[in-house]
Parts: sequence; C-alpha cells; structure tokens
Amino acid sequence: MVFSMTMQTPGTSTPAPVFSQRRDWAADNVVGFMMKQAVDHPECISLAAGLVDPKTLPVEVTRQAAERMLGDDSMARTGLQYGTTEGSHRLRDLLLEYLAGLEETTVGELGIDRDQLMLSTGSQQMLALLCEAVLDPGDICLIADPTYYVMLGTVTGLGARAVAVDADEDGMRIDSLEQTLESLDGDGLLERVKMIYIVSDFDNPRSVSLAVERRQRLVEIAAGFSDRQRMLVVEDAAYRELYFDGSPRPSAWGFDEDGQTVALVQTFSKCFSPGLRVGFGVLPSDLVGPVRDLKGNQDFGSASFNQHLLATVLEDGLFAGHVEGLRGTYAAKRDVLASAATEYLGDIDGVDWLVPGGGLYIWMTVPEHVDAGFGGSLFNRAVEQEQVMYVPGDLCYIGVDGVRPRNRLRLSFGVEDSDRLAEGMARLARAIRAEL
Amino acid sequence: MVFSMTMQTPGTSTPAPVFSQRRDWAADNVVGFMMKQAVDHPECISLAAGLVDPKTLPVEVTRQAAERMLGDDSMARTGLQYGTTEGSHRLRDLLLEYLAGLEETTVGELGIDRDQLMLSTGSQQMLALLCEAVLDPGDICLIADPTYYVMLGTVTGLGARAVAVDADEDGMRIDSLEQTLESLDGDGLLERVKMIYIVSDFDNPRSVSLAVERRQRLVEIAAGFSDRQRMLVVEDAAYRELYFDGSPRPSAWGFDEDGQTVALVQTFSKCFSPGLRVGFGVLPSDLVGPVRDLKGNQDFGSASFNQHLLATVLEDGLFAGHVEGLRGTYAAKRDVLASAATEYLGDIDGVDWLVPGGGLYIWMTVPEHVDAGFGGSLFNRAVEQEQVMYVPGDLCYIGVDGVRPRNRLRLSFGVEDSDRLAEGMARLARAIRAEL
Repeated sequence: MVFSMTMQTPGTSTPAPVFSQRRDWAADNVVGFMMKQAVDHPECISLAAGLVDPKTLPVEVTRQAAERMLGDDSMARTGLQYGTTEGSHRLRDLLLEYLAGLEETTVGELGIDRDQLMLSTGSQQMLALLCEAVLDPGDICLIADPTYYVMLGTVTGLGARAVAVDADEDGMRIDSLEQTLESLDGDGLLERVKMIYIVSDFDNPRSVSLAVERRQRLVEIAAGFSDRQRMLVVEDAAYRELYFDGSPRPSAWGFDEDGQTVALVQTFSKCFSPGLRVGFGVLPSDLVGPVRDLKGNQDFGSASFNQHLLATVLEDGLFAGHVEGLRGTYAAKRDVLASAATEYLGDIDGVDWLVPGGGLYIWMTVPEHVDAGFGGSLFNRAVEQEQVMYVPGDLCYIGVDGVRPRNRLRLSFGVEDSDRLAEGMARLARAIRAEL
Repeated sequence: MVFSMTMQTPGTSTPAPVFSQRRDWAADNVVGFMMKQAVDHPECISLAAGLVDPKTLPVEVTRQAAERMLGDDSMARTGLQYGTTEGSHRLRDLLLEYLAGLEETTVGELGIDRDQLMLSTGSQQMLALLCEAVLDPGDICLIADPTYYVMLGTVTGLGARAVAVDADEDGMRIDSLEQTLESLDGDGLLERVKMIYIVSDFDNPRSVSLAVERRQRLVEIAAGFSDRQRMLVVEDAAYRELYFDGSPRPSAWGFDEDGQTVALVQTFSKCFSPGLRVGFGVLPSDLVGPVRDLKGNQDFGSASFNQHLLATVLEDGLFAGHVEGLRGTYAAKRDVLASAATEYLGDIDGVDWLVPGGGLYIWMTVPEHVDAGFGGSLFNRAVEQEQVMYVPGDLCYIGVDGVRPRNRLRLSFGVEDSDRLAEGMARLARAIRAEL
C-alpha cells in the first residue's frame, strides 16, 4: 500500500506542518501581543485596554432580566433551545424599535423589516461575515487611516488588502477618498475595490466622528458604482451610544436611499455587556442570504440564551437608564484624563491631544523625535519604569513599518477609575518628559 | 473623475451583484430548506428535527446557576466582561476534569493542559475553524458515508472537497479508508488529503458508533502521514454523553499518542442546552495558535457569560443528574419509536431499521423502488397527506444526485413526546405502505 510505505520510510526530514492559506493570512495578531503585555505586567495602570469599565457592567439589570426570563417556563425553554441562524424574532423586533430611536424616526420610516436585521456574536462576527461575503483574495477595502486595527486583521485574514484613505478630525476625507479611487483606477485596480469601512461615531483609536455631510457624500459615491460592482459601505457603529452631549447622529446607513449600499453594524458590547456578545447587522436585502449561509456554516447561529436575556432587558425598560448612567461615567472619566493631560503635559510644545465628545479614547501626539511606537523606547520606558501602558498609535495605521507615524498614543479611559487615570497620566507624562 | 463618470453612465444594464467565492461555495443550504418545511407545515409531527427535547431543557438547573453567578458580584462582572479568544480559564479547567471523567482517567493522565482546550460557539464553530485552519480550496476531507450533512457544507464552503469512505454498522470501514487513500494516490491527489472527519459516537444520521479498534487503527493511519503532510483527524463527539447503556467509550483522541493527529470536538448543545452554544475543541499544540487567530478575527471569543454559567453548573454538581435524566428520557423515547416501527412496519419485507444504543436517530431503509428522497414521492406524501416529517436520507450522502441511495430515512426521537412518536410512526407507515 502506498501510504503504508510512506509511513515506514525512515530518516526523512520532518516538513513544516501544513496549514491553510487562510491560517497564514490570519497569523499577525497584535491584540495577542497587547494582551500578553497586560498579563506580563499586571502592576501597570492600563491606559491601553479597550475594555469597558468593569464597575459599569449591568450586574443588577442582568440579574433582574435573568430572573424574569428563567422564571417564565416558556421564555426559558426558548432561550435554552436552538434558535435560527438569523436570530430571535423577539429580539430583532425590539431592535427595530431600538434602531428607530437612535435614528430619531419610527419603525415604519426605517424602511426595513426584521428579515434584514441579523444577529451575530458581537459586532466583530458581523464585520467578519460581511468581509467573507464580499471580499476575495486580492480585493480591496478602503479604510480611514488610522483605524480600528482588528478590522485590518479581518481584511488581511481573507487575503484581501486594506488601502488607506486620509482622515482628519471629521473622519474620512472625501477628497482623499476620491483621489484614492482615481489612483487605484490608474493602477487598474478600481474593480477590486469591494468595500469601504467606516466607524462613523467616536472611532477607535481617535474618538473622532465622521461629519454628517460626509456620510451622505460617501454613500453617494459608493452607490454610484452599483451599475458595475458592489462597493459595500460597512458602517461600524460600535460606539454610537457613547455620546456625552446632545443626541445620537443619523447614521450613514440612513442616507442609503435604495438600501443596497450600506451595511450598518452595531453591538451591545460597549453600551451594555461585552460578555453577552450580542451584535447585529442591518443588511442590504441581497446580502441577507449570503451572510446567513456563511454564518450557518460557522456556528448555526449565536446563542439564543443571550438574545432572550437582552430582549428581556429591552422589553422591561432596563436598558435606557443603564446606558444613560454609562454616558455620565465615561464623560466624567474623559474629563479626568483630559485635565490630567493639561496638568502634566500642557506646557510641552508638540504634545497635543483630542478631547472627544464620546467614546473611550484620547488620541495623543508627541514630538516627532519621540518614538512612542510598538516596541519603541517610550513604550518600554512607560511599561518597565513607570508601570503605565498605552496602545502605540502606529499599530492603528495601515501600511508597512517605517512609514507609519510612531509619535501617536491611544489612551483609553475605559477600564481604570478616576484616581488611577490621573495617576496613569502623571506616570505617562514622566515617561514622555524623559524621552524629550 | 473616472468614477463619477461611471456614476452618470445612463442605460447600462445592471450586472449581478458581486459576492466572494466563499459566498458562492456556501450557498447550498439544506438545513434552510428543512427549516422552511417545518415552518410551512407546523401541523406535522416532526421525526425530522435534530433538536433536543424541549421538555428536557435544564430550566431549573440554569436558574439555580444564574442565581449564584449573578448574586456573586465578582463572578457576575467576569461573565459580563470580555473574555479571551480561547475562553474562560475557569471553565477550561473544569472541562479538563469533565473530559477525564469521560475518558475514565485522571486530569494528569490526559496529557494536555488548559491551553490545548479552546472554547467555541457550539461545536459547529470549532469544526468550521479547524476546517479553515487546515483546508485550502481543492483540498480533501475524508468522511464516512452517510454523514452529518452540515459538515459537508462547511467543507465545500471553503472550496474543499468531501470524499466518501464506506461505513457499516461499526462506522467508517478501515479497508475502505485504505482503498480510498490508494485510489486518491493513483489519481495524484493523496497530498490533497488534509483531514479525516469522524463522528465516533452515535453519529448523525445513523446513530452508529465507530468500533474502538477502528478508532485506534484510523489514528495510526493518519499519524503515518505526519512526515509528509498534516492529515488531521477531526473527531466530532457531539452525542458522546447520550449513551443509553454502560459507560462512554474511549475517544479516538485517546489513541493519539503524540497528540499531533487528532482534534477532539465536543459540545454541551446535545447534553445540556443548545441555546448556550458552548462547545470546545482539544487541539494538537501546533493548531492552538492558528485556530485562536482565526477565531480572533471572527468574533474575538465566545460569550463569557455562557461560559461562566456553564462553569457554575459544573462546579455546583448540577450537570451529572441532568444528563443522567436525559439519557433515561431518550432511551425511553427510542424504545417507543422502535416498538412502533415493529408494530406498524414489522411485517413488510425490505423495511429495516437500526435500533441505536444512544443518540437521537433511528435510520430506516425502505424497499429500493420506494423514493424516500429529497422532494420525492414518499416525502411529499408523508408531509402533505399524513402530516409527518422526516429527513430524507439522500441528503446525508456525499456525491451527486442520481447515485445517492433514495430509500433511506433519518427518524429522530429528539423533539416529540412518546405519544406523538408512536402516532408519527403510524402515519409514516401508512405513507410507506401507500408507496409499495
């Protein structure tokens, strides 16, 4: 037998284990490195972690909802049984109302029904599914630079390519988007552009929001390609609920008049509980089937239990109060971190930061000769000597080492309490001064 | 601008929307059809659904565990916060003990640590991740025929190919496995064989188990290729706990002496609650990183909440009693369905069935001239006239229409109660007799 001969061949060298191409594409994992730093340096004050504040987690609200759900035999059994791949009818109907509230309109005016709303394991799964449904190896996704670095992993994990579009304090620049498309056209690559990824509200890492008029213009540009190719706008609204003043902005999705251009992706991880992993997408109708089939192959469907628990939270009116409290907490912590920055770094030329109107992050620039980058001198000094950790800003840029700016820092006010935020900024300031 | 000219080109025909190749590969969805049948015919008695019995769902056990978990502030906050991609330490440590119990050994003798045990959203996600880590388009996965048809979708959804190996009442035949490998070698395709998929206990659709000596031999054969390629044995043990007599069998994984050949995949969907979607894999060490990276891109990690809820169930000793009751319930329902088969069909030559020692299914063969297949005459008669539904056995075979046997039926005793199981068999018998 051929294969048993092979089995017995002595002295052959052991080749490298074989993995799929997808495995190789997925291998570069920055999050893993950052988590290892956190584990290796537990004494550090973390201005790095993008986690939500553990003190704000809705323990009591969840307890109440679980009590009602598990005290109702029928509701309990529905939650403990398989659901469908698309997710619970009950929660999806409630989410249509929830979405109408955010868009400041009515469910009827939304122009969609429950079938276009699909539940997922956090918003990350919906982002990944949309990428899988649309991107082939070699395809291009346009992304504002700097960006949510996990999305870069998702895109490159499919063998596709992220191409940077410049952004300013109002998010992705429309002129840069147009120039990028022209330049790709000049290179014969325009037809490979299948996706534009935007984080419309309080993005990661800068907490800047895309200006409302840009949302509209961007959707028009993408829709303009609809007679030759799908150029899907994926709108990631993970931080949408975390506004500190005023009210939520209209989504880019709301400007998609034919409903064929924008997929809106949201999550309850930031505004309620990451541990429940409930996210959702609002999809163009022709993407519903493809995304459902892909999700069916991946996991059949996300946990029914969590969907019914969250549905109970929404139904019982337990959500609004929680998220209002959350906004207050984060706004206060932003103020503490921003004030500490002024106190400890306000006098240094070339140290600047954005004070955001929402979200979880303050984006800081230090003088160009300071190496704040991944594995660089400031990062090591901060971690080893001052015991404070941040996310090096270069990780959030598209493109190769050497051209990414290395003088930016993402500082999060998510996890630590006010005292430690102030102390963390004092320590960071000492580290920065030592590098000047 | 090039693209705005494109936008304004009038009268061009609308091309088909563009999707990725992966979307096309994932498009053939049998589960969706069956679910639609169930929705369209709610009056039917379902001998089709592979769901667990809703009456057996652990409402009270889950209520108790949720009460303790959400009453303990620290445990509650851990469950409501992000976890790691690999999953909760606490649950993984408990699962090592659980696995040792199934293998009838000690945690120390298992020869693995927590890091090789990774949690997933049901076992389906772990199966899908393993396929993604190992299979490229054109690669081959060997599967016993007939098989769990969802796995066929997962394999073909990656552009890979499922190749059938014959099976008898002791599962995959080793002689057929050897012949298949020889034949693929003859075709120059041996190096594309990257995976062997087995459902070792009470498989879907036939509820047959792989003989223990075959488990060992199969692992030896796959390991024999380790000096030239990865030929991963994926052992799906979804029904492992649902044995009706004796005790669980040793896994194929237990025969993998170097720990590099078998990935063992289990789930709490069948033996506890599908709505929690907690599954896990025990992985060869070099697969841990690749699978974690792929999962990280897909969803960061499965829901912490569910992991801690299940950990509490295990820790508080609430699991064993539940699963023992479950075995009793399903054994009794198997007896009802098997007795009804004898009563209503025992006198017909050419109608035979397997009475299983575990699992959820009875596999029935009808005379060859009866078309029991997908969309065939018996299926339509059963659904439309007799209001009873089954899974046509041809859906569970690999290969093209026309060569798959169309005289097999998968009958499930999972969902319906005893009275309806007996009535369902009476109806099915009438439908079969009418086709003779």
